[in-house]
Amino acid sequence: MRPLAFPLSLTISLPVSSDKTADAERLRRSLEGAGFPRVEIPLPLLRELPRFLRAAGKNEAMLHPVLGCMGEGFRLIGLRGETVYGLAVDIGTTNITLVLTDMISEKEIDTLDVENPQRDFGDDVLTRVHRSMRGEDLHTPLLNGLNDAVGSLCSRNALLHEDIAAVAVAGNTIMSHFFLNLPVENIPVEPYVPALQSPGILSNREIGLAVSQEAVVYVFPNAGSYVGGDIVAGILATGIYREDEPSLFVDAGTNAEIVLGCRDWLMAGASAAGPALEGGVSAIGRRAGPGSVEHVRIDRDTKEIVLETVGGGEPQGICGSGMIDLVSEMFDAGLIDQRGKFVSAEKEYRLVREKGRELIVSEREIENFLRSKAAMFTALSVMVRSVGLTFHDIGKISVAGALGCGISVERAANIGMLPDVAGGRFVSEGNTSLRGARMLLLDSGWLEDIRKITAMLTYRELNEDGEFMREFPGALFIERRG
Amino acid sequence: MRPLAFPLSLTISLPVSSDKTADAERLRRSLEGAGFPRVEIPLPLLRELPRFLRAAGKNEAMLHPVLGCMGEGFRLIGLRGETVYGLAVDIGTTNITLVLTDMISEKEIDTLDVENPQRDFGDDVLTRVHRSMRGEDLHTPLLNGLNDAVGSLCSRNALLHEDIAAVAVAGNTIMSHFFLNLPVENIPVEPYVPALQSPGILSNREIGLAVSQEAVVYVFPNAGSYVGGDIVAGILATGIYREDEPSLFVDAGTNAEIVLGCRDWLMAGASAAGPALEGGVSAIGRRAGPGSVEHVRIDRDTKEIVLETVGGGEPQGICGSGMIDLVSEMFDAGLIDQRGKFVSAEKEYRLVREKGRELIVSEREIENFLRSKAAMFTALSVMVRSVGLTFHDIGKISVAGALGCGISVERAANIGMLPDVAGGRFVSEGNTSLRGARMLLLDSGWLEDIRKITAMLTYRELNEDGEFMREFPGALFIERRG
Repeated sequence: MRPLAFPLSLTISLPVSSDKTADAERLRRSLEGAGFPRVEIPLPLLRELPRFLRAAGKNEAMLHPVLGCMGEGFRLIGLRGETVYGLAVDIGTTNITLVLTDMISEKEIDTLDVENPQRDFGDDVLTRVHRSMRGEDLHTPLLNGLNDAVGSLCSRNALLHEDIAAVAVAGNTIMSHFFLNLPVENIPVEPYVPALQSPGILSNREIGLAVSQEAVVYVFPNAGSYVGGDIVAGILATGIYREDEPSLFVDAGTNAEIVLGCRDWLMAGASAAGPALEGGVSAIGRRAGPGSVEHVRIDRDTKEIVLETVGGGEPQGICGSGMIDLVSEMFDAGLIDQRGKFVSAEKEYRLVREKGRELIVSEREIENFLRSKAAMFTALSVMVRSVGLTFHDIGKISVAGALGCGISVERAANIGMLPDVAGGRFVSEGNTSLRGARMLLLDSGWLEDIRKITAMLTYRELNEDGEFMREFPGALFIERRG
Repeated sequence: MRPLAFPLSLTISLPVSSDKTADAERLRRSLEGAGFPRVEIPLPLLRELPRFLRAAGKNEAMLHPVLGCMGEGFRLIGLRGETVYGLAVDIGTTNITLVLTDMISEKEIDTLDVENPQRDFGDDVLTRVHRSMRGEDLHTPLLNGLNDAVGSLCSRNALLHEDIAAVAVAGNTIMSHFFLNLPVENIPVEPYVPALQSPGILSNREIGLAVSQEAVVYVFPNAGSYVGGDIVAGILATGIYREDEPSLFVDAGTNAEIVLGCRDWLMAGASAAGPALEGGVSAIGRRAGPGSVEHVRIDRDTKEIVLETVGGGEPQGICGSGMIDLVSEMFDAGLIDQRGKFVSAEKEYRLVREKGRELIVSEREIENFLRSKAAMFTALSVMVRSVGLTFHDIGKISVAGALGCGISVERAANIGMLPDVAGGRFVSEGNTSLRGARMLLLDSGWLEDIRKITAMLTYRELNEDGEFMREFPGALFIERRG
């Protein structure tokens, strides 16, 4: 188990007349002796080395060089390995999460959630792609946003930017391209081809993050325009590529990304679930965060509504998992019918009635949501059937993503968004993209698994599928399906 | 034979729905098909690739990527391989020479000689090292001077800086360190250890030459503080490391660098010959250049002096080879005795008597020169004897270096500066450092030979040698020795 960056302890004898090996080759020799025969030493560190070596001892110097994994070899990242930190970063379309890790103790010491600054250019990725195609720079705001976040993490943990020696980044294909300042223009047009699949391990000198200039920066590979590094990281995190039985992994955000497979094969597909699941479908929709309604309970008799919010404060909007609860409860309480139509004449429903703080959802918004839930179920169903299986053959269903607040799989099954199978097989996974990045940061051995995953992964176009179109209308109804 | 940088012709099919391979991996696949499985593709070029690919064709694109050798693999340097140029550079303490080469036709198309701008900091390297140790920046003036020279070459040959894809640089250890902005402070002090022996092949992004940002920049390795990359390049150029018989290679500049060896072993030594040989010993001394006296003839009877200058113009000073001629002629004409003492009462000799254009050399200056010539001969003699040989065992004596104007080996033998052996075995080699750089530029296969040379090369301290001290006084006399 070798972290993406790690310190060594080396004792290096200083030059004497009987051993005039140059400083760089002297260090290289010590590294070889410690089992690291192929280490790239950047020029800026070579410039520091002679003084550093001589300041560290008279006859012998005790050095703590920091090495970064480069896939096949290693690179020297720094000479001051007393402290080594790493960052795992999930670049979501909406939200960016950074986890700061002490690479020596392997402890996660801080987490920061920030908005993706690209939201100023549009909430959905397609708008951003179009603005980029018109010549606007969407890379710099993203990089600046990341660097502001890194700055906050550094200052509140009293560490130096240079102490961050490794970064693992996961994001969808468009986010990864924006991060690397690669052109995105071909991603959303036939035949949907990214500029790059596997960025691999880059030097931060090529990127410009506010971390060590020499830091290794790993960006998760995509498996095409629609299966991004976030999904590859998610597959790694959920481990479905190591399962004996066929398993499902659903990452429900703006799109529902679905992966079906096991240790022998992996198939990915995306369904345009629509922004409903991220909380963007209704006027009161909002992403998971303090004040977001995440759970809803409606009394069957009194029709009294009880809202539970993230953080417990006043409800300010409703997030994806709240919306699932809401629709499930409204249906069970008889407020809406199977098609989502309001039973009463009033075509809207008030979650919060207090003046000035009203939260109202309309029949039309419920219908929009049902289209999203239908798209997700249909995608799951079509994909499972396409390999000759039924939901009952599935060993594990991992649910992750921007549903964020913690989706109730029971409620999701109740409205027919997820299949109605024995609940125990559902695993709520949280942010699997971030988790994959955290895993890789602490063990570069996962690189081999990632290579395996991308090699195994095939993509199945779901929205263009005839079967999808045939099945979708039936899935719009609120009912248990399996 | 693979040049340091070279273009390829690749036909790349554009993405279609049946082949959605990303652009970068598409290029990589084509490169693999062409026999280049390990090509590093820098991010800036990836950013250009998608548009470049689609502009080059509709179904298929004909691409001319430029590859640079990286030792074990290759790196993509550019996408516009219709023109590819390379630079061979000899960074001398005094003079810098650049040769511009068309890497496709393999023709050398221009040469430029400029002064080393570091001369403003002192003529000799030690002064420069001391000023650098006091915190002065000697790297930037050198880099700027190089870039000015590159600019001149580009503009007078109407080519773009970006078209220069490869650079091979040879210089002594201190010049190589200044070039790479590495600390030089430990080079001239016990135990004389450079910061770096083998810079290898770097990216120009690490260096900042006014050539392609991605250009490969090879810097010849040193074999210690006293045996620089210029000598390693010279060994390559003279080929003495491939000789069956023991051969000598003398690079006579400020120091006389001596290499003795054959295909089985190589031994290098340096003798502080003093600046005499570069024309720095006398008031009228100057380096080789238009107006420098390079040949001298004194009539044995009339004592009339005939001077030959570089370029044929009015004599303005005397360079190293002129000094050798002068002393040899003065001795043969009976103007000085064996110890260099003036026979007449006048303790100076006028080469040019015309008022306002006088060139005068003093007895003291002759004596200084004799110390340099004695140092060189003694170094040669001690070295040859140290391996149990005599001069008559030597197969070939290659003479190169800052004697520049073209040393007359017969005159050098006449005064006992070079051994008096059959003249045919002397080969006047010119600037072997530059020649080695030119060779490598056009054939990276020499990298293997360079590795062999530096592995074989041992260094012998000559000035600290007891034998040297004993032999030196005898070598001060003007006489044929062998």
